Amino acid sequence: MHTYQHEVRYYECDRMGITHHSNYVRIMEEARVDFLDQLGFGFDRIEAEGIVSPVISVSCNYKHPTTFKDLIDIEVVISNIQDLKFEFTYTMRCAGKVVCLGQSTHCFMENGRPVVIAKRLPELYRLLKE
Amino acid sequence: MHTYQHEVRYYECDRMGITHHSNYVRIMEEARVDFLDQLGFGFDRIEAEGIVSPVISVSCNYKHPTTFKDLIDIEVVISNIQDLKFEFTYTMRCAGKVVCLGQSTHCFMENGRPVVIAKRLPELYRLLKE
Amino acid sequence: MHTYQHEVRYYECDRMGITHHSNYVRIMEEARVDFLDQLGFGFDRIEAEGIVSPVISVSCNYKHPTTFKDLIDIEVVISNIQDLKFEFTYTMRCAGKVVCLGQSTHCFMENGRPVVIAKRLPELYRLLKE
Amino acid sequence: MHTYQHEVRYYECDRMGITHHSNYVRIMEEARVDFLDQLGFGFDRIEAEGIVSPVISVSCNYKHPTTFKDLIDIEVVISNIQDLKFEFTYTMRCAGKVVCLGQSTHCFMENGRPVVIAKRLPELYRLLKE
Repeated sequence: MHTYQHEVRYYECDRMGITHHSNYVRIMEEARVDFLDQLGFGFDRIEAEGIVSPVISVSCNYKHPTTFKDLIDIEVVISNIQDLKFEFTYTMRCAGKVVCLGQSTHCFMENGRPVVIAKRLPELYRLLKE
Repeated sequence: MHTYQHEVRYYECDRMGITHHSNYVRIMEEARVDFLDQLGFGFDRIEAEGIVSPVISVSCNYKHPTTFKDLIDIEVVISNIQDLKFEFTYTMRCAGKVVCLGQSTHCFMENGRPVVIAKRLPELYRLLKE
Repeated sequence: MHTYQHEVRYYECDRMGITHHSNYVRIMEEARVDFLDQLGFGFDRIEAEGIVSPVISVSCNYKHPTTFKDLIDIEVVISNIQDLKFEFTYTMRCAGKVVCLGQSTHCFMENGRPVVIAKRLPELYRLLKE
Repeated sequence: MHTYQHEVRYYECDRMGITHHSNYVRIMEEARVDFLDQLGFGFDRIEAEGIVSPVISVSCNYKHPTTFKDLIDIEVVISNIQDLKFEFTYTMRCAGKVVCLGQSTHCFMENGRPVVIAKRLPELYRLLKE
């Protein structure tokens, strides 16, 4: 798996001149999308099966500010997987220095109900387990 | 019809310390939503009929910058209405001074095709004409 | 202290039709700004003193989705205060039901260095302690 | 000059499942930043000279919707340059089809006053003229 890279946009920076903290949550989503694509289970494939994947929780620990034009490298790992939910951990680095550590927890829903991942999406479950 | 008011958020300001220009397009949408609500034809009512209302064009002329905590008053008028599309004009003021002039053109679509407003939504057509 | 209210905008909703999870982080900022204003210590006053207040960490636990036009009431409390940082806890409700629980930690910086809140901003420290 | 490419993010799509119209204004900014970088006159270089470059006007004509994961190619040209302002025209294509046509007008400001481009930034003026 390769790491994902995000270049900070002008419109992502705030009055302090730094990347607004809410944007890291969006960058984590970009990296997660890329990660699932690399697994062959993109959002589009999952959505085409009538499944949506809501976010249950998200957290960010900001270590160093970044700014316009900075290149943020995001390393994504599956840090936990259970019957109904799974967790990603994100290490975001800029020029080698950790700028933000993030986590997010997700489930899969079909017709408004959470699905047991190992049953409904066994292939993805196996891949996430690895 | 009352004017709509938007208070500028911290996260809407950029590195120059001013409201990022893209946000005026969003503020215009907020004012349009409010305008249609006042007419009794909110987005939710229109969407419930299976109709969506894409934006055909949008423009902004920026007169003065605004910043965090500024209160922007947006006056919305229907400036043109034709068979298949209609146009809003927005006058945005802050403390009485015009800060931005905007326009947007819209149509209504049903099952992927534009609808003749006067036929499909005659009550709304009458209201927009007034 | 009154609670802060945010009405969900059309542009804040995603392809699932619900408020995009990243926007709760922005709503928390809006509520925090309002809270500090109520204390008489708005961002503008703090920034005017040459002090900035970066976010150290943020977390959200999503309980129920919200959507376009929903009114979210945000109750803010100071849940912890230390020498160099302080923490807000946010309870976000929609029609009485908890939709999201959030937390954020912050510090104050002057000339690139963290300040001891009780020393540099004693009046605010006293207010946050109450 | 190469064209700039933007991949549509999940969070850029709205309840209609398409790229929210306001995001094209941001994509135009990304393309403009890239264009000026290619000229050797990035925002950072200009800002380092104490010059800011506010947007005077912006417009978009939406031709076809785009959605999550679409690759939008943006061709940028300088369509007009005058003493105090200059205009970019953007042709945005997805899979060869024009999806949006945009324009934006800009000036340069120093100490709160517009500058005569040919005098203050003669090298950039020459490049934009070409």
